[in-house]
Amino acid sequence: MATLRLARWATALEYSDLPKDVVRAAVRSFYNWAGCTIGGSNHPATLIARQSLAPFFGASTSTLLGHKGEVKIDAQHAALINGIASHVHDYDDTHLDTIIHPTGPVASALLAAAEWRTGVSGQDFIAALVAGIEAECKVGLAVWPDHYDVGWHITSSTGSIGAAVAVSKILGLNMSETAHAIGLAATQVIGLREMFGSHTKSFHPGRAAQCGLLAAVMAKGGYTSSEKALEAKRGWASVVCPSKADILQSLDKWIGSEGELSLVKNGVGRWEILRNSFKPFPCGIVIHPIIDACAQLHSDIMNKNVGIHNIKSITAKVHPLVLELTGKKTPKDGLEAKFSVYHSGACGLLFGKATPAEYDDKVVLDPEVIAIRDRITAEINTALTPDQTIVIVELQDGQVFTKTIEHAVGSLEVPLDDPMLKTKFLDQCIPVLGDGAAAASKACWDIEAAEDICNITQYM
Amino acid sequence: MATLRLARWATALEYSDLPKDVVRAAVRSFYNWAGCTIGGSNHPATLIARQSLAPFFGASTSTLLGHKGEVKIDAQHAALINGIASHVHDYDDTHLDTIIHPTGPVASALLAAAEWRTGVSGQDFIAALVAGIEAECKVGLAVWPDHYDVGWHITSSTGSIGAAVAVSKILGLNMSETAHAIGLAATQVIGLREMFGSHTKSFHPGRAAQCGLLAAVMAKGGYTSSEKALEAKRGWASVVCPSKADILQSLDKWIGSEGELSLVKNGVGRWEILRNSFKPFPCGIVIHPIIDACAQLHSDIMNKNVGIHNIKSITAKVHPLVLELTGKKTPKDGLEAKFSVYHSGACGLLFGKATPAEYDDKVVLDPEVIAIRDRITAEINTALTPDQTIVIVELQDGQVFTKTIEHAVGSLEVPLDDPMLKTKFLDQCIPVLGDGAAAASKACWDIEAAEDICNITQYM
Repeated sequence: MATLRLARWATALEYSDLPKDVVRAAVRSFYNWAGCTIGGSNHPATLIARQSLAPFFGASTSTLLGHKGEVKIDAQHAALINGIASHVHDYDDTHLDTIIHPTGPVASALLAAAEWRTGVSGQDFIAALVAGIEAECKVGLAVWPDHYDVGWHITSSTGSIGAAVAVSKILGLNMSETAHAIGLAATQVIGLREMFGSHTKSFHPGRAAQCGLLAAVMAKGGYTSSEKALEAKRGWASVVCPSKADILQSLDKWIGSEGELSLVKNGVGRWEILRNSFKPFPCGIVIHPIIDACAQLHSDIMNKNVGIHNIKSITAKVHPLVLELTGKKTPKDGLEAKFSVYHSGACGLLFGKATPAEYDDKVVLDPEVIAIRDRITAEINTALTPDQTIVIVELQDGQVFTKTIEHAVGSLEVPLDDPMLKTKFLDQCIPVLGDGAAAASKACWDIEAAEDICNITQYM
Repeated sequence: MATLRLARWATALEYSDLPKDVVRAAVRSFYNWAGCTIGGSNHPATLIARQSLAPFFGASTSTLLGHKGEVKIDAQHAALINGIASHVHDYDDTHLDTIIHPTGPVASALLAAAEWRTGVSGQDFIAALVAGIEAECKVGLAVWPDHYDVGWHITSSTGSIGAAVAVSKILGLNMSETAHAIGLAATQVIGLREMFGSHTKSFHPGRAAQCGLLAAVMAKGGYTSSEKALEAKRGWASVVCPSKADILQSLDKWIGSEGELSLVKNGVGRWEILRNSFKPFPCGIVIHPIIDACAQLHSDIMNKNVGIHNIKSITAKVHPLVLELTGKKTPKDGLEAKFSVYHSGACGLLFGKATPAEYDDKVVLDPEVIAIRDRITAEINTALTPDQTIVIVELQDGQVFTKTIEHAVGSLEVPLDDPMLKTKFLDQCIPVLGDGAAAASKACWDIEAAEDICNITQYM
């Protein structure tokens, strides 16, 4: 019954059901997504997608972000290309329990669809966004971690479902139609982890957005799938997570009558969107503690006339996942550098920061950065959690500096506050929108007040 | 190296490399696909897809089959909707070793792309079609049967890859670009078996066609994926077939330097397209032996003034797969009836045939058909192969008729000959194209001679 339960919950959810903190988390999630998408709009991956797919563009209803509303294409391609842009700098949000980047697939589909249909209010948009994010995170929790371990990019493999749920709401699908939309989305499983480090990683949330939008549109038209798509013997959960012996119980736990999803409306259950977090650094989240430590060590060391030649060694004690995901020793370009704990740590130590500028190809190939990078050793320490790290810098003169991180900035425990989130937005959007970045920031931050979502995209 | 090997083989393959019987098999495969697609063009599933997606259609370059070239839409949607139509009657071809329906995903993408690009000759089209079909069947063989058993619809989960390979050829991608196209296709895994019996089963080959086309277009534009997409630790084969312990050896066997695919160019290896078969009945292939037996029994029994009330019982001894796939006892409509050995056998016995007309909803609900259907018992017999069946009809007066089938008509051993294939084409196309069906038949049969594929679609 998971599919129908999810459909029933999602169709019934209204803006007025949402607690204040949930609305605030949704606004922050949308705002962060918009900043990342505008920031990623001129990345080569985004541009290649746009250029190569231009021959297929249909009616110009939906905004391609990064052009102040001046570029509109059809909703399906807008969902795809904005979705690519949202993830291309690996700077988007993270639901830490599943490492899903939840807003990319959902908001990319939702904004494109809302502009296509017109007349969707900011409040209805927020309710749909919450429904979609809860849906993808709950199904993600059901299959986590086996599903990720086997090699699926969980952001996109669950993202189609989240996008379908969200778009179903604003297109007005009933419960049964929504279930069929979930099925149509579930049958399109996007994203192999092998693609990490290539353009295709960012294709994943984009294509998931497009698949979910397509699913909702076709289901609204009467196209049938299965009302047991998630829980059937050969349905989504069992097929994408065959190694989890109790997969159906797990699905029931997270989308069950006894579970969490059915209860959030009554204020009893857990809202996954409250567990969403925002990255201060545009790279894999498992490196964040190391960057945080190195950036703090920058103040202690590099600001005190210590030159690179004075550094003998840098040792980072890390959770095993750090090397599994980000162990690239000699990244060739900015994209690979996002998967290099060595480059990222070097930037933290050398510059005291790791913003998008530090993942420019030129910085990755900068001899000074490489000189630091090559002195970093990452040591696996299974006693550490992924949140923790200990970084030890030894100088040639024997001095030793140590920094221990329990929770990196950007974690649930040390979240980005609103001013930091706004700085992050502007850091990304000023290079793209220039003076228009402030108006974009205001429009996105005030989304709740929009009478029609179409009124805000002219600033984005 | 499987990904690059496949890319190297596919980019090098030329029409002049193809043995005569391979060309003939390709022409027959295309011809059968065209008939099925035209025949499925007015099915509700096809019409819903067309209607609901119409708001997104782009430039009118590519033909929607079934309208004599009068309806053109953008190539991506043409690939999707023609792909749906090609499979919607479950009447398309079958590569029996993997039960992949190979031509749907590949030809649907290829025809749409060829019309978009223009200037693609019939011979180049055939070479690309062969490359795509070999690709999907070889990767299918690598993951068979575990991949299917866990719940993937293998036609679409491999079909994206076949479509990408085929389209890459006519767009002129080089080896590396083709490898990236394979990666982009491989990361879009379409098709859960749970969807069998709903519209979404036919969505699968359509969406696979579209995913493969998209992959080739984006890779040509320079979008990167992985040149180890198929064989990497978290690449396609391991992720979609985690239960097969020797999956990488299996991949190497079928796409290896020592394997079959790399050798076919020298005439040594095995061409999968020679193992493609064409259905005489528009339903799951595992029921075909039973229909064949029942249709033969029709002549022995029903033609001899035996009424339905004279039949006491019908017993079909069948391979276990028959009930697993087609065990629906009381189908509600034509779509469900395709998964009912009971309805299909009843039509064979009552009418001596099972053409698309016998899967009309009215026939499924016909009391006479139901009366026969309800007397059929299917008994699992593990000593039988899926090709074999024994059907025993007992009359009220004690007479017993038995029919044993070793290989059903339409199998590799008893293939449809060219006249039967043409009858099947016309049976499907006359209701759609009327008098134009003969011209469509001629144009499709003569595809090899076309200077530009655009010249034949006006008849389709």
